[in-house]
Amino acid sequence: MELIERNFKLVIEYNGINLAGWQRQKDRPSVQGRIEEALEKLTGGKVSVMGAGRTDAGVHARGQVAHFKAATRLSLGEMLRALNSILPDQISVCSIDEVPADFHARYSAKSKIYDYDIFNNRIRSALNRFFVWHIPDPLDVELMAAALTCLLGEHDFACFQSTGSSVQTTVRTMMNAEISRPDGLVRMTFEADGFLRHMVRAIVGTVVSVGRKQLTLADFEKILASKDRSQAGVSAPASGLFLREVKY
Amino acid sequence: MELIERNFKLVIEYNGINLAGWQRQKDRPSVQGRIEEALEKLTGGKVSVMGAGRTDAGVHARGQVAHFKAATRLSLGEMLRALNSILPDQISVCSIDEVPADFHARYSAKSKIYDYDIFNNRIRSALNRFFVWHIPDPLDVELMAAALTCLLGEHDFACFQSTGSSVQTTVRTMMNAEISRPDGLVRMTFEADGFLRHMVRAIVGTVVSVGRKQLTLADFEKILASKDRSQAGVSAPASGLFLREVKY
Repeated sequence: MELIERNFKLVIEYNGINLAGWQRQKDRPSVQGRIEEALEKLTGGKVSVMGAGRTDAGVHARGQVAHFKAATRLSLGEMLRALNSILPDQISVCSIDEVPADFHARYSAKSKIYDYDIFNNRIRSALNRFFVWHIPDPLDVELMAAALTCLLGEHDFACFQSTGSSVQTTVRTMMNAEISRPDGLVRMTFEADGFLRHMVRAIVGTVVSVGRKQLTLADFEKILASKDRSQAGVSAPASGLFLREVKY
Repeated sequence: MELIERNFKLVIEYNGINLAGWQRQKDRPSVQGRIEEALEKLTGGKVSVMGAGRTDAGVHARGQVAHFKAATRLSLGEMLRALNSILPDQISVCSIDEVPADFHARYSAKSKIYDYDIFNNRIRSALNRFFVWHIPDPLDVELMAAALTCLLGEHDFACFQSTGSSVQTTVRTMMNAEISRPDGLVRMTFEADGFLRHMVRAIVGTVVSVGRKQLTLADFEKILASKDRSQAGVSAPASGLFLREVKY
């Protein structure tokens, strides 16, 4: 009996430390590369894994989503156990589901949610050093929250795109952009129908300039309206960024 | 004017990853070693740092305490900033105070508090892998809490001491031993006037055997009464252990 190709959806958590990011690379360990190797070991064939978003080196994920097609008789439970036993500890597969053939991790996504964590304390924390951006100077969190509300709705986010990117359109819809204060952190959460390359880190860097009062709210609105990357602030470091969830 | 020797108290946070533990070692990076090197750079003289407890490789600290004597004109604020800029990111000095000459980090301590974190989930978490003991099988947390109450008060804890240790007495007083459930974890918290070598990890390993129903509560009480290390369970891994606080 010939095996029929099935389409699978993975939800993946990873710790960005020591990983060269999502995308497969020649000589450095990537999440995509590690998962493809594990699946090839498991299924005995070539497997291509497509992620919902390409996170950079050092960025973490609580709920990255990926899909892959494979002809296999393995049950979902067997695949889940086998994948987690093959994968290195800094990557875990939270769930695996069989999905319709046309499900695509990237193109079927309705929105993505990112968290960005700042540790705003005079003294750095040794324990969270790989999971936050440590900012010792005081931040005006009220002003930062006000800046985030400017981002809500449909905007051309070209000013927050990394230079050299080429995409068809830089217009995106931001459904949520807010600040919370879990566990002594300052957390910015963003939900949008799509994100440009380095967009969250460029937004966070610029919002922090508002929080430090290096930029006013009016400056922030002007930057957004300028559509010019050179207007925005520096990018926030990768360590504080988490891809939390992809919605379908 | 001759400099007078001053006595300093440090509160230290560290991330046990890639550290050989508290105690200075010849060829491997230790917390004590790193802090002594930083202080010697800062004061220009030989400095001995004495910690409240010697944590093992991989064990973390939120509030380790240490003292050292040095003849220096530096202010406390200057020393704090300089130490944190010299020390590697995985060690941070939370505070520095000047204390009476007879203050001793170890002998003046009234009690120490340790937390031990277990991630009890079928699938491991890539994000917390260095900060928990991952246990995939179900645990009976009620039974574990009951086992912990057996430890309260004064006991001879010889059964939970690592073999080969030699101390004057193995009697300690446990002021608190309880379970809480923060952030999806199972956390055991212990406060005692002193801890024997590997005592927390041996207790946790044995309490987990109760949670897995490999031991009954009666077995647990018998082990404690036996004063025999070979009776207790295996030691829990270092990754889940945090020295939270030292009280004076």
